[in-house]
Amino acid sequence: MIKITKPTLLIDKEKALTNLDNMFAKVKQKPLMFRPHFKTHQSAEIGRWFKEKGITQITVSSVEMAEYFAQHGFQDITIAFPCNILEIDSINQLASRIELGLLVESEEVIQYLNRNLKFPVNIWIKIDTGLRRTGIEPKNVDFVLRVLQSIIHSKNMRIRGLLTHCGHTYQAKNQQEIIEIYHKSMGELLKLQDYLSNQGHHTKISIGDTPSCSLIDHFKRVDEIRPGNFIFYDLMQSNLGVCSENEIAVAVACPVVAKHEDRLEIVIYGGAVHLSKELIIDYRGNKCFGKVAELSENGWTQTLPETYVRALSQEHGIVKTPTSIFNRIKIGDVLVILPVHSCLTVNLMRTYHEFNGKKYSVLG
Amino acid sequence: MIKITKPTLLIDKEKALTNLDNMFAKVKQKPLMFRPHFKTHQSAEIGRWFKEKGITQITVSSVEMAEYFAQHGFQDITIAFPCNILEIDSINQLASRIELGLLVESEEVIQYLNRNLKFPVNIWIKIDTGLRRTGIEPKNVDFVLRVLQSIIHSKNMRIRGLLTHCGHTYQAKNQQEIIEIYHKSMGELLKLQDYLSNQGHHTKISIGDTPSCSLIDHFKRVDEIRPGNFIFYDLMQSNLGVCSENEIAVAVACPVVAKHEDRLEIVIYGGAVHLSKELIIDYRGNKCFGKVAELSENGWTQTLPETYVRALSQEHGIVKTPTSIFNRIKIGDVLVILPVHSCLTVNLMRTYHEFNGKKYSVLG
Repeated sequence: MIKITKPTLLIDKEKALTNLDNMFAKVKQKPLMFRPHFKTHQSAEIGRWFKEKGITQITVSSVEMAEYFAQHGFQDITIAFPCNILEIDSINQLASRIELGLLVESEEVIQYLNRNLKFPVNIWIKIDTGLRRTGIEPKNVDFVLRVLQSIIHSKNMRIRGLLTHCGHTYQAKNQQEIIEIYHKSMGELLKLQDYLSNQGHHTKISIGDTPSCSLIDHFKRVDEIRPGNFIFYDLMQSNLGVCSENEIAVAVACPVVAKHEDRLEIVIYGGAVHLSKELIIDYRGNKCFGKVAELSENGWTQTLPETYVRALSQEHGIVKTPTSIFNRIKIGDVLVILPVHSCLTVNLMRTYHEFNGKKYSVLG
Repeated sequence: MIKITKPTLLIDKEKALTNLDNMFAKVKQKPLMFRPHFKTHQSAEIGRWFKEKGITQITVSSVEMAEYFAQHGFQDITIAFPCNILEIDSINQLASRIELGLLVESEEVIQYLNRNLKFPVNIWIKIDTGLRRTGIEPKNVDFVLRVLQSIIHSKNMRIRGLLTHCGHTYQAKNQQEIIEIYHKSMGELLKLQDYLSNQGHHTKISIGDTPSCSLIDHFKRVDEIRPGNFIFYDLMQSNLGVCSENEIAVAVACPVVAKHEDRLEIVIYGGAVHLSKELIIDYRGNKCFGKVAELSENGWTQTLPETYVRALSQEHGIVKTPTSIFNRIKIGDVLVILPVHSCLTVNLMRTYHEFNGKKYSVLG
């Protein structure tokens, strides 16, 4: 057992590997590419677990992450973020040595890349199937066709297809809604693909949110999936019905530093700089910044009933709990907080700790 | 001018120094100690600016930060966080070489320290004047007296006094409410101090939230102030009326990567891993994750009217803006985002960039 004296990011490697196997099982037997998103773990060590299963094509969300994973032997990387033309020098460096995928959604960026790319890259057109974050709406068929034709007529740009992130599944209330959002999004995307096909352009389809990819088994006409969060999951996913709390593979161990019996609150050393201020609204309408478990021999227990992080300051967390648990927990104990959004928590904590004492860092 | 290609933490040193001078001017001529909180900047370089003005007594929020600033020559440090007994080894190491201040609020912790401290430390009793985060409520006079007596009868513990963080000023709606909260908190604290004094115990008073410390000029009967955020300020403070937007001394420069004319939204490379998910509700009831300025020769402009960050993903920010500004901003431009909570933004970004090209890092 590792010695915990301050907020410590724990990883349950077995759970993460099971999550990976479950997702990978969906694509292995099919003509479906698996290009997992590495922004969740940002770690070469964890990347190695994927590689050992034969997964070598990956997604990242920044040029910096692409550079990091390229240094660690990944040769085929899509940067699933609207191409940032200010990073053209780094993009060219990457394109000179790996198979690089970029996202475009405007003629300005295509023109810029046409003038400035020095090596071939793969291009995906970013489609917005409903999240309204970024991308071209599929109803704008003429504009998509124009963008596609510009790509085809540009230097060093190989059109790959249509890429979307159905992130509005995160606004769903339950599994059924996620599945409905998925099918609606796919319907729009496939209509667009059919239109382009009728114009003589074959395009691939790449999708990639963890809620859809976890709940859907038959990805009809999809060429590639890019989920990321599934490797760890988190409370946002369990709240959506996408995973169980037992599948969550990272957590932050936090020392208990004070207790307030009058309001049944426990103060932990673990705040916004450890967990992030991401929150869910629980079934009672309470803000919840994390659920609470206890350390067990080689991991953590089930979450404690009716016990949650109700508030966070920079370094403090306030845990609300029933009397029986309150009385049992002592100052100097360690509580284990399951994160609301594992990507943000990992990005803050930066160093993973396995129970055997092994540790490794984000981008490290 | 520095070259910006990705999210970059800018610091306007002149503004920060003016903020420092303004706060320091309040205490210089008075029998009032200034022990600024360094959790906001976490930087030895910025700590040097304080030292050059003769400020050598500081506050931090973790043992780790205390170790860092002790390494950088600070000899008198209060860790303004409930003493975490699991870090006793590091606490003893620190206490062996610097004047170390700790916060206690329970008999368990005092007993533990009595058994385990190897060197003298200064002890403050943490009082909760209304934030209800942690500390003893001032109405519990008997309990405070018992805690104080335990401290006095313990080894290696020198009682200093009563310490509070009136952080409920952050829930105020305007300056007037902040001032009222300050006076109510002080009233309770001074009554407690009087009670202890009648029992023969002289205690000092230490307070320390940026809203109160910025707005109050006469800190009657206060011995020490510990504000931290004031060095940079942020939108949370300007929203409270504590500072003007022009006084905000840090911001994140973010490339524009996409535009959506139909909804007048600009997509920036700058998300929750850069700004944090801290938000304010603006005067229209909108969630606001940042306000937006443009680069100027050696800094940034006034904030753009009716322009704000309405949503954040891990790496994306969505800026809402009126037509005239929307039309002017181009893909590849750089927008400057004023943060909602500078402490969290700095903690995420980690490297400061001055306009002259100089850079330095958090805990680096």
